[in-house]
Amino acid sequence: MVKSDYSLGILQYIPFFYVIWSDDLLSASEISVVKKTIELDAALNVDEKNQLSRWLDRENPPADNVLKSWKHTISNSNVKLIESDTYPLTSLSQRFGNLQCDNCDFNDHLKHIEINLGIQPNHYNHLFDVEVIHHKSSNFYDSNALDTILKGPHSMAVDDFRDILNQPIFQWDVLRNKEDFRGKVLQQVQLLGDKGYGAMAFSPEYGGTGNMPAYAAIFEHLMFVDGSLAIKFGVQFGLFGGSIQKLGTKKHHDQYLTDTGKAKLLGCFAMTETGHGSNVRGIKTTATYDKKNDSIIIHTPGKNDNKEYIGNALHSTMASVFAQLIVDGKNEGVHAILVPVRDKNNTILNGITIEDNGYKLGLNGVDNGKIWFNQVAVPRENLLNKYGEIRDDGTYFSAIKNPNKRFFTMLGTLVGGRICVAKGGVGGAKMALTIAVKHALNRRQFNDSVKVQEDLIMDYPTHQLRLTPAIASAYIYHVTLEEMMKRYSDDSQPDKRKIETQVAGLKSIITWFANDTIQECREACGGKGYLLENRIADLKGDVDIFTTFEGDNNVLLQLAAKGVLSDFKAEFNSAGFTSVLKLLRSQLADKLSTINPIYSNKVDKEHLYNPKFHRHAFNYRTRRLTYTLAMRIRSYIKKGIPSYQAFLKVQTHLLALGKAYSVELAYEIYNEFCASVTDKKHKILLDKLGTLYALHQLHADTGWFLEQGYFSGTKSKAIRQRVERLSTELRPHVEVLVDGFGIPEHCITAPIAK
Amino acid sequence: MVKSDYSLGILQYIPFFYVIWSDDLLSASEISVVKKTIELDAALNVDEKNQLSRWLDRENPPADNVLKSWKHTISNSNVKLIESDTYPLTSLSQRFGNLQCDNCDFNDHLKHIEINLGIQPNHYNHLFDVEVIHHKSSNFYDSNALDTILKGPHSMAVDDFRDILNQPIFQWDVLRNKEDFRGKVLQQVQLLGDKGYGAMAFSPEYGGTGNMPAYAAIFEHLMFVDGSLAIKFGVQFGLFGGSIQKLGTKKHHDQYLTDTGKAKLLGCFAMTETGHGSNVRGIKTTATYDKKNDSIIIHTPGKNDNKEYIGNALHSTMASVFAQLIVDGKNEGVHAILVPVRDKNNTILNGITIEDNGYKLGLNGVDNGKIWFNQVAVPRENLLNKYGEIRDDGTYFSAIKNPNKRFFTMLGTLVGGRICVAKGGVGGAKMALTIAVKHALNRRQFNDSVKVQEDLIMDYPTHQLRLTPAIASAYIYHVTLEEMMKRYSDDSQPDKRKIETQVAGLKSIITWFANDTIQECREACGGKGYLLENRIADLKGDVDIFTTFEGDNNVLLQLAAKGVLSDFKAEFNSAGFTSVLKLLRSQLADKLSTINPIYSNKVDKEHLYNPKFHRHAFNYRTRRLTYTLAMRIRSYIKKGIPSYQAFLKVQTHLLALGKAYSVELAYEIYNEFCASVTDKKHKILLDKLGTLYALHQLHADTGWFLEQGYFSGTKSKAIRQRVERLSTELRPHVEVLVDGFGIPEHCITAPIAK
Repeated sequence: MVKSDYSLGILQYIPFFYVIWSDDLLSASEISVVKKTIELDAALNVDEKNQLSRWLDRENPPADNVLKSWKHTISNSNVKLIESDTYPLTSLSQRFGNLQCDNCDFNDHLKHIEINLGIQPNHYNHLFDVEVIHHKSSNFYDSNALDTILKGPHSMAVDDFRDILNQPIFQWDVLRNKEDFRGKVLQQVQLLGDKGYGAMAFSPEYGGTGNMPAYAAIFEHLMFVDGSLAIKFGVQFGLFGGSIQKLGTKKHHDQYLTDTGKAKLLGCFAMTETGHGSNVRGIKTTATYDKKNDSIIIHTPGKNDNKEYIGNALHSTMASVFAQLIVDGKNEGVHAILVPVRDKNNTILNGITIEDNGYKLGLNGVDNGKIWFNQVAVPRENLLNKYGEIRDDGTYFSAIKNPNKRFFTMLGTLVGGRICVAKGGVGGAKMALTIAVKHALNRRQFNDSVKVQEDLIMDYPTHQLRLTPAIASAYIYHVTLEEMMKRYSDDSQPDKRKIETQVAGLKSIITWFANDTIQECREACGGKGYLLENRIADLKGDVDIFTTFEGDNNVLLQLAAKGVLSDFKAEFNSAGFTSVLKLLRSQLADKLSTINPIYSNKVDKEHLYNPKFHRHAFNYRTRRLTYTLAMRIRSYIKKGIPSYQAFLKVQTHLLALGKAYSVELAYEIYNEFCASVTDKKHKILLDKLGTLYALHQLHADTGWFLEQGYFSGTKSKAIRQRVERLSTELRPHVEVLVDGFGIPEHCITAPIAK
Repeated sequence: MVKSDYSLGILQYIPFFYVIWSDDLLSASEISVVKKTIELDAALNVDEKNQLSRWLDRENPPADNVLKSWKHTISNSNVKLIESDTYPLTSLSQRFGNLQCDNCDFNDHLKHIEINLGIQPNHYNHLFDVEVIHHKSSNFYDSNALDTILKGPHSMAVDDFRDILNQPIFQWDVLRNKEDFRGKVLQQVQLLGDKGYGAMAFSPEYGGTGNMPAYAAIFEHLMFVDGSLAIKFGVQFGLFGGSIQKLGTKKHHDQYLTDTGKAKLLGCFAMTETGHGSNVRGIKTTATYDKKNDSIIIHTPGKNDNKEYIGNALHSTMASVFAQLIVDGKNEGVHAILVPVRDKNNTILNGITIEDNGYKLGLNGVDNGKIWFNQVAVPRENLLNKYGEIRDDGTYFSAIKNPNKRFFTMLGTLVGGRICVAKGGVGGAKMALTIAVKHALNRRQFNDSVKVQEDLIMDYPTHQLRLTPAIASAYIYHVTLEEMMKRYSDDSQPDKRKIETQVAGLKSIITWFANDTIQECREACGGKGYLLENRIADLKGDVDIFTTFEGDNNVLLQLAAKGVLSDFKAEFNSAGFTSVLKLLRSQLADKLSTINPIYSNKVDKEHLYNPKFHRHAFNYRTRRLTYTLAMRIRSYIKKGIPSYQAFLKVQTHLLALGKAYSVELAYEIYNEFCASVTDKKHKILLDKLGTLYALHQLHADTGWFLEQGYFSGTKSKAIRQRVERLSTELRPHVEVLVDGFGIPEHCITAPIAK
């Protein structure tokens, strides 16, 4: 028994009180939890209760020398803190209070405090000089359970696929020479085609399962092998195959789809031109119908009008070429035409010039090239004619009369690719986080001179803060993209305009998140993160371009914002702004409630952790930005400034709205998802990740909320502290969280992650 | 003459009024400039003055239909806007007001408004339907003048060096195979050694000029050729050569320095160990004095105690090895010893194992390796003995008795390397910005349907905002590092502790700035930025590691913060905190003035552009963070929390202070520098860059200033608007600004920058 003047009843509480006060850990509302518990503890007499209550007065906290005496008493006991105990602080306290009672039951009151305040060993183990039996991670949660939740309906497909990735050909290796690298990636793609993975999103008659969401889950897994593989796979099956599937008709499907899915017919997706990166409507390649020969002539008019950056260009035998279709002298707008580019001997066909794009920052296993066409004739039936065709009499026909609408309907069918790019980004971030966390749980650096070994770098608050919110975000974005893919693939909802707009915004914030996270992981691994063998370097180079391709992020965010402005009723990615303006004129009214100062000053934990608060804040931001943006544009227009110029002037405002809306959307989707999780134990953990994501996002934009008076200074500070605190609270579970991503062991080849 | 009801006097002012009101361009104080000018314009009669004054009432601005009629009148005139005019708006207005008077003098009053309000064509050319004779850039300022200012005293050395870089061996090329790449970089280093550039910082008797600042300027230029060259050059001459020069004594200088400077003796700097990245004091390699044989035995005790990431390891014949020096059984702390590692035939010597680190994210032209020593004996005189030696009688002696102080004195002599790394980062950022700006002045994307050609992407506000503050920052950091190098090299100030601390912080914020900027430039160039040929990709890979080597940024920032806490009086980079705490105890008093609400609401241009405001804000932040940090630490200590743990708990606060201090320091140095610039014309431009930097920095941390009540919401918004506005104002000069970096034409090989 510890020698002290305190009664046994009080003694049990001393470690708790020491933890509470020495670390300023608890807010007023949390102290009331302790107070209530003490009142209910029948083992305490009135004097003891009074004494303990006196130590819970925030206005008059225990003096420093009292705290020191508590610490001294604890240190001089023989009690050890055992982190692997289910309730380590309760266990320590009871043994501390009464050494005789080694086998007695837990004091439920202490347990209650420990659970309800979420006190974790890493909150207090540094406070005790007593020996700490240290474990790197807690096994309270189960990574398999998390993985199962994330896999959702694709569990079987994903598990099978993970096994496939154990084949030797998927072993990671350094291949510096691009021809060697491309050769290997081609083999990998062919193997996957052979196994049926290329056709997955096609219908069963062409070898698939018609399951686009499962295809996307597979696609993400390719990032764990290599970014080049993911992209080449996406080009062959998603873009080239997808263009035939979605823009072509049965004759094209029958002729090409099976071979495409098996990678027997290699193809590329020739949309972008050197002169026209983000402006697809402005492409210059022409496809002129030659009535006499019933063929279409594909032609590159100017030197800079070549197709640019076309993946698979050096291996393809066919290209899906986007060009201005000219029929009978009239430009009918952009259409896709299948153009053979190589013969069976892999020789480039007449009239076609293909140039290698050369070495890139990443993705050097993808053969990107430039393509020029010099009056290349293809049969009329090569026009992918689902949305527009040339009839037998040589006239053009489309069921969609409005050329704008036709164009965006065609592009809209390809939005699945944009979701996949975002998923690839999340996959890259998960991989980098897994490596960085495992490294941080091995690596020790510096130390307290008292301790025998240096600290794990995962125990540094700065390290927790740089990795943990990113882990939470990866969970949120995984769930968000799963849901978007589900909605996109739901054929009962044919109008995809809203989803397209939402995906435009989400792709932007998620690919930026992926890049930031991979960079943070690189730095968190120090020099080791810089070595190719540790994989983060390649991820960095590969994922970098995700912010640019399938739509430049800045352009996409503006599209998303215009969608919000028009309440998703206008052609979201139209270059004209008329429809948006029409809507603005009618619907402008500031529905925003004014902010109650009590609300903007509210800082208690219940409020800050409440999803209602997060949703209100996110929604307030979106609405406020929409309103002020609309007012600004309207004011410019009223003064006679052309709408194009008016939109140019509010560009930064558009970007802010696009981001704000996307974050709100992701959080809403994640929240709904959590509500549907039936595994109660892990739901708590998932909810906590949602809270961390929300607070982290609010903190990142706290300047704006403060400007608006939505946050007081105190509230802003409280949010920052909560982000730090949550990151620390999750420290024991950080390994389970990254293991929950389900990246197969055989893919994690990084020596520092061993 | 334009048909209108307005008198000629009024007509001249119409374009100005249209610009002012249609774009909400002017604040209250700016309108008063216009008002005053009108009052002074003797050509106007009273009625005209009254009419014009009525149009200057912010409470009651001209109605929208009045604005529209102005626009209509201007559009229907035959007057063209000629941007190349010195005062384009004045010129337009006069021709508009009176077509007869093509050759009359400028109306000084209009000129006065145009100059004093800083109205630029890109503020208003979109407002007119009149044809705009468009120039990509203004030549009002002179890039050579800026270059001359930046070169400062190194003008001759730098100009000569730029010519040297035109030699074919410095031509940029893709070398994927590391052996080829390393071979080329070695040749480059040898050529530079041969030409005398390696020895530059050494004294004349060893082939140098003793000019460390000029050496650093040269070093930065190497980044324009290739990052690997810069780093290998730095390792050979700065680190290996520097260790001999600064830690050795005359016998070492005489024997090695000349050959080192000529790259005839290749050496490496073997400090870091696998197990101890940032914690140099904890390295495990031992150097045990063997009295019997009068030699020192170098030994790697454990598998992970090898030297790691050592540049030049595969080419070196000698290593400067940092090891725990043990004399007569006593560990005297870390010392450097020269250890031959290869013989004349380039064969690795007995007892030494060297392994290639393999491929990296960047810098693959640098041969990094791991080194193990197995009981390797070297003569006693190989100890670099300036600060500690083994005497003839076999006893250890050092004039610096305190081992801590001895250690940090030795490390401190190497701080020049840290400045060079930061300079390299700025060089990389300059290069990327130059390429991105030149691309943005060539590349057109999207357009107004009315216009013939698509807009230059440099004309997008978002593009201006992503590149222009970075250009300003590059100027500020260039000047800051020049000054720090000057102070560091000033031998009349032997106590470098404060400079070391300052450099620790500056290196962190500047290398992060460099990485962010290069990334922004990559994205700003779209897919083109991803191609190696356009150079940004390599810069990204190379500069990435600058945040980690020569001190991890997070560790360095904490050192900087501890320096600020202790008022630079303690051993800044000591792992112990005692000295800091001692100081804290004595000096804690909040000297901060309370913030006047009028001040926190002040938003007029004079105030926001005033350096006094910026300095006050930066200084307030540093002091406030210092005070609150000190209070937190003291409170933890008082409660009995060990100081090591207390510092751990405030880690994020330390980082914030380190950054805040560094930004303040950079701005102070830049301000002083501008005050000394004698070229009045370009001083205005440099001042504007300083303003943009300051406002951009304040905006980036606006959440904090709002939290503190230092900014009101209105002020925060006003600052954001000013950052956007300044970025647009600088648009015409953006090419001159990047040309002012002085990167030689022959180094800018990127096709997109042509």
